[in-house]
Amino acid sequence: MTHAEATEADPAAAAASLSAVFAPRSVAVIGSSRKQGTIGRAILDNLIRDGFKGPIYPIHPVAPELAGRPCARSVLAVGKPIDLAIVAVPAAAVEDVVRDCASAGVRAVVVISAGFAEVGEDGRAAEQRLHDLARASGMRLVGPNCMGVLSTAPDVRLDATFSPAFPPAGNISFATQSGALGLAMIDHARALELGIADFISIGNRADVSTNDLLAYWQHEPHTRVIALYLESFGNPHAFARLAPQVSREKPIVAVKSGRSAAGTRAASSHSASLASLDIGIDALFAQTGVIRVDTLEQLFDVAGLLSSQPSPLGRRVGVVTNAGGPGILLADACAAQGLTLPTLSDETMLALRSFLPSQASVTNPVDMIASAPPDHFEQAIRLVGAEPDIDAVIAIYVPPLVTQPEEVAAAIARAAGSLPATKPIATVFMSSKGTPAVLSRGPRGKIPSYSFPENAAMALAAAVRHQEWCDRPVGAPAELSRKQVDAVRDWAHHVVPHDGWVSFESIATLLEIIGVRVAPSRSCAPDPDVAAAIAGELGFPIVLKANARHVLHKTDVGGVALGLTDESEVLASARAMIDRIGHVEGFTIQKQIPAGVEAIVGLTSDPSLGPLLVAGIGGVAVELYKDVAFRVTPVTDRDVDAMLGDLRGKALLDGFRGSHPVSRDALREVMLRIGALAEVLHEIAELDINPLIVLPDPRGAIAVDARLRMKPRK
Amino acid sequence: MTHAEATEADPAAAAASLSAVFAPRSVAVIGSSRKQGTIGRAILDNLIRDGFKGPIYPIHPVAPELAGRPCARSVLAVGKPIDLAIVAVPAAAVEDVVRDCASAGVRAVVVISAGFAEVGEDGRAAEQRLHDLARASGMRLVGPNCMGVLSTAPDVRLDATFSPAFPPAGNISFATQSGALGLAMIDHARALELGIADFISIGNRADVSTNDLLAYWQHEPHTRVIALYLESFGNPHAFARLAPQVSREKPIVAVKSGRSAAGTRAASSHSASLASLDIGIDALFAQTGVIRVDTLEQLFDVAGLLSSQPSPLGRRVGVVTNAGGPGILLADACAAQGLTLPTLSDETMLALRSFLPSQASVTNPVDMIASAPPDHFEQAIRLVGAEPDIDAVIAIYVPPLVTQPEEVAAAIARAAGSLPATKPIATVFMSSKGTPAVLSRGPRGKIPSYSFPENAAMALAAAVRHQEWCDRPVGAPAELSRKQVDAVRDWAHHVVPHDGWVSFESIATLLEIIGVRVAPSRSCAPDPDVAAAIAGELGFPIVLKANARHVLHKTDVGGVALGLTDESEVLASARAMIDRIGHVEGFTIQKQIPAGVEAIVGLTSDPSLGPLLVAGIGGVAVELYKDVAFRVTPVTDRDVDAMLGDLRGKALLDGFRGSHPVSRDALREVMLRIGALAEVLHEIAELDINPLIVLPDPRGAIAVDARLRMKPRK
Repeated sequence: MTHAEATEADPAAAAASLSAVFAPRSVAVIGSSRKQGTIGRAILDNLIRDGFKGPIYPIHPVAPELAGRPCARSVLAVGKPIDLAIVAVPAAAVEDVVRDCASAGVRAVVVISAGFAEVGEDGRAAEQRLHDLARASGMRLVGPNCMGVLSTAPDVRLDATFSPAFPPAGNISFATQSGALGLAMIDHARALELGIADFISIGNRADVSTNDLLAYWQHEPHTRVIALYLESFGNPHAFARLAPQVSREKPIVAVKSGRSAAGTRAASSHSASLASLDIGIDALFAQTGVIRVDTLEQLFDVAGLLSSQPSPLGRRVGVVTNAGGPGILLADACAAQGLTLPTLSDETMLALRSFLPSQASVTNPVDMIASAPPDHFEQAIRLVGAEPDIDAVIAIYVPPLVTQPEEVAAAIARAAGSLPATKPIATVFMSSKGTPAVLSRGPRGKIPSYSFPENAAMALAAAVRHQEWCDRPVGAPAELSRKQVDAVRDWAHHVVPHDGWVSFESIATLLEIIGVRVAPSRSCAPDPDVAAAIAGELGFPIVLKANARHVLHKTDVGGVALGLTDESEVLASARAMIDRIGHVEGFTIQKQIPAGVEAIVGLTSDPSLGPLLVAGIGGVAVELYKDVAFRVTPVTDRDVDAMLGDLRGKALLDGFRGSHPVSRDALREVMLRIGALAEVLHEIAELDINPLIVLPDPRGAIAVDARLRMKPRK
Repeated sequence: MTHAEATEADPAAAAASLSAVFAPRSVAVIGSSRKQGTIGRAILDNLIRDGFKGPIYPIHPVAPELAGRPCARSVLAVGKPIDLAIVAVPAAAVEDVVRDCASAGVRAVVVISAGFAEVGEDGRAAEQRLHDLARASGMRLVGPNCMGVLSTAPDVRLDATFSPAFPPAGNISFATQSGALGLAMIDHARALELGIADFISIGNRADVSTNDLLAYWQHEPHTRVIALYLESFGNPHAFARLAPQVSREKPIVAVKSGRSAAGTRAASSHSASLASLDIGIDALFAQTGVIRVDTLEQLFDVAGLLSSQPSPLGRRVGVVTNAGGPGILLADACAAQGLTLPTLSDETMLALRSFLPSQASVTNPVDMIASAPPDHFEQAIRLVGAEPDIDAVIAIYVPPLVTQPEEVAAAIARAAGSLPATKPIATVFMSSKGTPAVLSRGPRGKIPSYSFPENAAMALAAAVRHQEWCDRPVGAPAELSRKQVDAVRDWAHHVVPHDGWVSFESIATLLEIIGVRVAPSRSCAPDPDVAAAIAGELGFPIVLKANARHVLHKTDVGGVALGLTDESEVLASARAMIDRIGHVEGFTIQKQIPAGVEAIVGLTSDPSLGPLLVAGIGGVAVELYKDVAFRVTPVTDRDVDAMLGDLRGKALLDGFRGSHPVSRDALREVMLRIGALAEVLHEIAELDINPLIVLPDPRGAIAVDARLRMKPRK
């Protein structure tokens, strides 16, 4: 059993065990030296500098003391209980040290030392031994190849990193797969006055994983927002189960790097993890409610809002500004993010008019002009915030004229206190001097402040989307019936793929087992006369397809003939195909389906995430316009609805330019069944139903062609 | 003649006249008061504080001195030549003051005072009088309703703003339509150490316009980069002619706000300018080489790179980093922006291996790991920069471990000096302490530094795209022949639109005049028998269309029948249409064109930019996927090529899934002729050729249906 599995088996216990990492009562540091600036010594110095609340035990083989603290020769010689040990010895010595820790009853170790899975086969083996040691002893292990852990909880104050400074205490807990990046972020958090709860550099994740951390932080009282920097997923299936539960309680904001081929190459060369298809990650995050951001700056911007403000209950934003330009930019950015700026009520406009100068604009944005004094900010925010049609307020201050940012910040802070508790407020202080501290000292507490209007809009929109995700009912996962599952297994037992590819006839059998209708069709040898005879039996009009394994797209080579109305036409077409294509392995003769909306439904396999359900609309458009949506299986009815909602061509389903609306329900049903199939038939490498013809109710959706490749049998 | 027209008539003289604004030899300030903090006084104080190099004349009706300088009672009483007068008196007094300035031979005035076109009809009239005064006297006028002008030229040092501080001198000249935003940007430029040359708040643009400024800065020696914040265009046609010339010499970076409906509403309420369709602005900027950025932050990021670095000659980026995570993020951001990270040559990798530790990665990004000392940065940048396959270098420094940012910055500065002069370098310093000043003190001078990797990638990509635009040959504008122009004019003289709409037959005549082929067709009264007879004359197969002015999309209501093969089919179809649609005004009987690629070519009219050429591919896809491109007319052959390049569905033209390639040239030719038509026939409100069937060579492109609405005659 891996630790990941252990986490799944008893998540509460696994989570509780991480309290030794973030809230230890005592810490040992192994690998400190007398020389300042070395890693182990820097950590020891930070533990002391930042005032760790428990005893600190430096471990050194010979030195009697380090940094003014008496040393023990090993953890075994300390003679007191040790919750957490920080290991910063050369890679070759790590295993013995970790074994000592286990023997001494240490509850958790953080292995800073590099030189494990990231450097090759020997390192991988050594890392596996660390994993096994941790497993056997029940001791939790962070790293190896990491840059430490930190907690700002006032009764802990743990700084087991080499960060140049301790971050401000707060409620954002942050896990990073890149240690250096993480420490830079901690540094930045200080500059932006973003409060951190816990920080962890997860390194190679020999034991403690992102999933463990999610489970821990879900119930950790200091944590309100979880921020992640990820390069890869260890156990995406556990993540898929866990993240939605956590997301509903505490928003998870994530940067997942390695989107591009170049990024993946860099990621692979940098850590020992598999590349993942970015599209799968997008799907996974969309399903699990994780707020994916593109940049580190956005990670800060979004986390800053969520850490201090309620999530808005809707998309309607009220803007109060003392400069027109930034107001317009904010309005543009809101629109681009799907937020709206409703016009204010007549009463509110009248009330604003009563004190604002005539040049001011009392629509939304409320532009109070450059000379607006602090009390105008206060009154305008109160009025706009009290509007029932406003879900969130953004105040913009530009110090152009009479510079009194302190007074304006204080006025905004007072006004924020009057807002209904459900309405968030954010500010844009366009001043190089930054935002006065007094902004966050009002009744609302911390109020986020941005340097540019666009950042405020982006952060607010992320919060809105997350709230909408939380408000969505939990979907029901699609499942096949017991009988269908048995039939699928039986099918899989008997199917004989060629180079992994399954014949259309076999695919049709499989689809019919799970209740997906297939156009009546039969296959035969490459004999035109036989094909014509079969056509006669099926009935006209007929579609004739040439089967040739070397041809990916039959239409590219004239391998499909539509609308054949009698046997002689079938005969002539079949002969022409053999002439044109050469190596035809057989024919498929199919009853022609009436025109409808062409859709594609299928499965693809992500190397790290497993099967993805794919759906798209519109034949050529799928390829030209990439109008497809993905979700990680298992999928729920809600996921399927969200997929259809994501398609730009969805209007085709509802009747477009005179065509009849087709059965959305039939398409949904096929998607759900294919999604459920992925959970039963793990051997599918890829499956395309293309086209699936979706017809008006009640005729449903009918598969016309399909391709299926099975994974090699082990 | 407006000043804009004057600028066109003699741009050199118009530009030269702006030297009185940015490089005056003397300045008068009208409207200063004894009270500090008022606008006029703040400007006077700033002129003194920031060391204006010429005499400063405070003007006050009674005060004998202000800020220690003797006052004159009016500009007429100064008795010395005055280049520039700053006017900050109440709106009602502005006209007299400006008249005095003209009488006193003042060369330029900056009217700070608000209360003109932005407040209503009276203000608009007053502003027109200011315009006329300036015109009559030849004196240039900035504003009204602006926040002043500034120049950092060492022999000028003009600060006629109320900015809290003087920005660092540099080569970025900045014009802003929002004064408050502009001053906030100046403030930010200081914090980011971005050097400013000239700054101007253009206010209501009664006289001096963005176009005047472009013409001036094109030849102004301190200016290397032009930055614009725009909310509207005064004279887009002059801009379209001028901007490409300027862009080729000095890059123009612009934020154009008011993209969204909400933004436009805010813009309109804030200044006296018309809303413009954002799509037209995008087209205009693409044609004129203007670098459009989405946010203020991007404006800084791009201007900072262009102001100090050569434009890269290609898209290949070399990355040197001491932290893996930011390297991956940068690689991702580069890929998203169309930049590549080529693998380094074997020699370079070998050379990097010779000094980097074994855990380092010598692919691209070169990840030197956290412990990299300054000399590793220096050597790695030299090696990567020397690679012939690398066009630009980005260095990332994260101070995780041994913090020596000063030394690393100095090493990067030294290495930058070794780069070929054609290769730009940018840095990412992920430290809250910012970037050490020593980075910009090496042989390369100023080196841009970003807080996050994504910003560096975005800025570099903007520079690459601009360079590619500059390298594109100048296109030849499409023109109709003299004979065609005469025929078009004659057609326009005789056409009889209904409610602006022109009949298909008339449109066909027009298209044939300009050499666009139209499927043979005739129209008739709503008489099925007549339609059938005409079909017999044209020859089969036939397309029958019902004409009904109340129907926008004929196919929506079954108003089009395809592939009718004899007269009886035409008869039956026509009868059915009358039954179905009701009020059919007539029929169009058209020879059916063979299947090809459906395209759309047309004209639309932007309220501020005038006619836009539009082109797209693919019937329903145009509407579902909005796969269309726009350009402001007149268009060149290069514009048309760029439009086709922008279409996501362009692969359809080249033969897709077994279809034949169709004539790209024929499509281009139609686009050019329609573009040229717009220049001749200004009465076109909108024109759609939809579909235009594009066939394989040599059959060309044939218009099958078209709609044309003319503007109301005046």
